[in-house]
Amino acid sequence: MAEWNKNVRLLRTLNDDHEGKFAAVEGEVEDRDGEKKSAVLLFEKTPFQFDDLVKLMQDDEKQFKVDFINDVYHKYTVEARSACNDVKLAYIYPAAPLHIKKYSKKKFSLICETSQCYETIVRPYIEKNQLNAQWVYNIIDGKSERERILLENDQFIVLPDIMWDGKAIESIHVLGLVKSHDIHSIRDLKPEHIPLLESLLAKTKEFLSSKYGISSKTIRAFFHYPPTFYHLHVHFTALQNRLCGCEVERAHLVEDVIDHLKLQSNYYQIKTLYYKVAVNDPLYKLLEQEEEDKA
Amino acid sequence: MAEWNKNVRLLRTLNDDHEGKFAAVEGEVEDRDGEKKSAVLLFEKTPFQFDDLVKLMQDDEKQFKVDFINDVYHKYTVEARSACNDVKLAYIYPAAPLHIKKYSKKKFSLICETSQCYETIVRPYIEKNQLNAQWVYNIIDGKSERERILLENDQFIVLPDIMWDGKAIESIHVLGLVKSHDIHSIRDLKPEHIPLLESLLAKTKEFLSSKYGISSKTIRAFFHYPPTFYHLHVHFTALQNRLCGCEVERAHLVEDVIDHLKLQSNYYQIKTLYYKVAVNDPLYKLLEQEEEDKA
Repeated sequence: MAEWNKNVRLLRTLNDDHEGKFAAVEGEVEDRDGEKKSAVLLFEKTPFQFDDLVKLMQDDEKQFKVDFINDVYHKYTVEARSACNDVKLAYIYPAAPLHIKKYSKKKFSLICETSQCYETIVRPYIEKNQLNAQWVYNIIDGKSERERILLENDQFIVLPDIMWDGKAIESIHVLGLVKSHDIHSIRDLKPEHIPLLESLLAKTKEFLSSKYGISSKTIRAFFHYPPTFYHLHVHFTALQNRLCGCEVERAHLVEDVIDHLKLQSNYYQIKTLYYKVAVNDPLYKLLEQEEEDKA
Repeated sequence: MAEWNKNVRLLRTLNDDHEGKFAAVEGEVEDRDGEKKSAVLLFEKTPFQFDDLVKLMQDDEKQFKVDFINDVYHKYTVEARSACNDVKLAYIYPAAPLHIKKYSKKKFSLICETSQCYETIVRPYIEKNQLNAQWVYNIIDGKSERERILLENDQFIVLPDIMWDGKAIESIHVLGLVKSHDIHSIRDLKPEHIPLLESLLAKTKEFLSSKYGISSKTIRAFFHYPPTFYHLHVHFTALQNRLCGCEVERAHLVEDVIDHLKLQSNYYQIKTLYYKVAVNDPLYKLLEQEEEDKA
């Protein structure tokens, strides 16, 4: 296999996630003809393993620096020279401008989407630009990913999210896709959909509980608004996962959605929805323009 | 300063956060008299620094192992021997049983709190056990933490959350405490509180925006339910932070709360609220018992 190319020069940080100990960096490589080409390097520190920690603790004591000691609390910085020091590196080379864009830090802004703003700006925008959910139809129609399906009936299909390995129970993430083509997002939901939502929620939780031996009460089920694709789907993730898109300004619990449909039949047609949008998203510019025009 | 004590024997993992690259481990130390005492060790990997990554890239190439190569995508595991390998270690010794409990992984379970269940179980429980908010009254009455106050008027006080260092803008976390002693949580909110909530939201966002030079649209404002203390307060955090308690089964956007109070005056008295509770929390046992009695 190819060896690591040491001629990569790091240019600048594209993104930096302190919580997840992740960094994306733009690099530059001079090839044999002296031509400079772009590269993207994604670094992520690895989780701790118990055996590796035991090894670290037996390391030469000189690697420990005392930060402070206060009563029973001692704080050190440990330079891990021989254990617990693996870094995962994904190296994209040559990198296209789209790769640079994809891995650059996104700036987000909180949006108030009133029902009027949905009707006049958002709906026309998604109908024009983002209604391509052909891959979902392929799954529903049995044309692709048949082998990945976990559960299916005449109303919905359940399969692992593309980012889940299908194994690690603690990071479980499955999607429930409704079969109807007519519901693009929670904005389209009406009381007539309550039985579908109740069934999708109960049957999927029951299935996950029995297949993976976990309590159904350790699973959260939610919609994204706005969704990444406009064909109604529910995310099921483990409560302990917090980096799965379950932030309050993006996620809507299925249970709350059902309650709201019972409370007011046109809740999702009239409610102002608050969510974050990347400022380089064309939708953001349309919504900003609208606000300026009003002001 | 004291040197690192190499006699610590690691016994078992108490908690393990793969997302945050954090681990809590129980240890045992034999002191000079041969007596064994408990210790808790908290390990956390450090975020990447650009200069440190440049150093890592110049390391001996033998530290790179190829995981796979597919077209422009290359994946490696890098053993970071001389850079990017710092681990923060907090060492608690001697550790009391409460320390072990505090740092052990909590198992959470999703709860449906109906209004009836709130009235008969939760409210009596919190009135009996958790209404000790004396430290909040001390702040409101000007008896403590005067120097930490960022903003104050006759309705509320804003100050940094105890976990925020008050400096790093990207991890901003401030609390807005209402001065009224009568509102324990969102369950107590009624339409008469709308002006208070609107003012707290607008004035705090305006203040944060001008003090820290950030757009007020990059801040999310939310309540926790259940809260950690029963005196109404709002969390203000940066949108980019996702590990600040903003999960959908715990957080309620202030904007949504205001909308709901306008939609239905007794929304927070009648709405079923869904949230997670640690299974070793006494409240969890009470709620479970109730469910079993019903079944």
